[in-house]
Amino acid sequence: MNIILASTSTLFGGQYLEYLKEEIVKLYEGIDEIIFIPFARPGGMSHDEYTEKAKSFFNTIDIKAAGLHEFENKAEAVNNARGFFTGGGNTFLLVKTLHEEGLMDVLKKNIESGKPYLGCSAGSNIGGQNMKTTNDMPIVYPPGFECMGLVPFNINPHYLDPNPDLKHNGETRETRIREFLTQNDIKVVGLREGNWIRRKGDRITVEGTELTRIFEKNKEPYELEAGSEL
Amino acid sequence: MNIILASTSTLFGGQYLEYLKEEIVKLYEGIDEIIFIPFARPGGMSHDEYTEKAKSFFNTIDIKAAGLHEFENKAEAVNNARGFFTGGGNTFLLVKTLHEEGLMDVLKKNIESGKPYLGCSAGSNIGGQNMKTTNDMPIVYPPGFECMGLVPFNINPHYLDPNPDLKHNGETRETRIREFLTQNDIKVVGLREGNWIRRKGDRITVEGTELTRIFEKNKEPYELEAGSEL
Repeated sequence: MNIILASTSTLFGGQYLEYLKEEIVKLYEGIDEIIFIPFARPGGMSHDEYTEKAKSFFNTIDIKAAGLHEFENKAEAVNNARGFFTGGGNTFLLVKTLHEEGLMDVLKKNIESGKPYLGCSAGSNIGGQNMKTTNDMPIVYPPGFECMGLVPFNINPHYLDPNPDLKHNGETRETRIREFLTQNDIKVVGLREGNWIRRKGDRITVEGTELTRIFEKNKEPYELEAGSEL
Repeated sequence: MNIILASTSTLFGGQYLEYLKEEIVKLYEGIDEIIFIPFARPGGMSHDEYTEKAKSFFNTIDIKAAGLHEFENKAEAVNNARGFFTGGGNTFLLVKTLHEEGLMDVLKKNIESGKPYLGCSAGSNIGGQNMKTTNDMPIVYPPGFECMGLVPFNINPHYLDPNPDLKHNGETRETRIREFLTQNDIKVVGLREGNWIRRKGDRITVEGTELTRIFEKNKEPYELEAGSEL
């Protein structure tokens, strides 16, 4: 497999996908056309507008992007594609759409066959075992929480450290992930913004400017440096 | 109906249910025994320990509390009860348990018959139309997101204003609720900590120390003062 699962598409103050540009060029080496999956976007921006945003970026690295929503037979479009990019938004909406259109398994098989895949935020969540460690609001009810399982763990994108100054009684991100581990025995990779997971063949590493926080059942959370294998 | 749906059980620096004590005394007037529903608690604390915490508070106002998990026939226990309190935790776990044990409708009918109900956080979410505006992580998959609909809207507990200093690309609470409204046409009441909803008969008001933020489809969000009818 040849994949990048990134915490976010855009760093604070940065341009869309800018911080990942070099990595993206390497990911899609030899490929001049990909399919963009816009289904996480719940509103404010249409699938067409979201696809335009992706196209603009990929134009700068001489790759054409077509929105998956444009195809009548979407499974066929995935099977004919040479690579994929799934943008962020709401994971519940993305997973519901992929399951209802029968695309989750088709996409998984194509990526497992070696076609490059880039996911950001919600698009990274679907690379994990299931979507039970998303931060998103459950604005729609998907027929299941299972995802593609491109990596043998779950992802928590936009991982945020507790803010000791916050006088607020909502759970911290760490508390939420620990609660997940009371109900599930799946490793969780807390990806701070600026970080991503790189899988090339069987080798899976964490990359980026920050440490990556790992959570496992019955274990204290620990940190991994960029380049560490998972 | 006679209910309180509170944003949180505990204010920053305060004791469990302390800020709501006067209101709770009025809610349960004439009642000396209630059922505590501990099912939102995912771990760290057992159902027994969680119930002990509730019992300690209710002792101070001369009300006995029994944990619903202690009863073999839980539906019968709900039907025989004189009042209810559902504690906070994880809304997905709470809703899954109530649906799987067939208790959501039983509880709803008993509250609609006039038995007093107090909910905090996850316990407030289940008073709304559905749980699609919870902040919790989807650590388990419930058979549905429908809730009791004790009020004709949804609740977002622990409502948090955007922090302009945060250099983080996750969605703000307001963005999440606006995304909910692209997929659903249900009013959302953003309950800041310190606030609660009071329903007495057909009269529903927002109460507490803070303004309450209201979100409706195709409308700019607006604020209501304590005492306003909903």
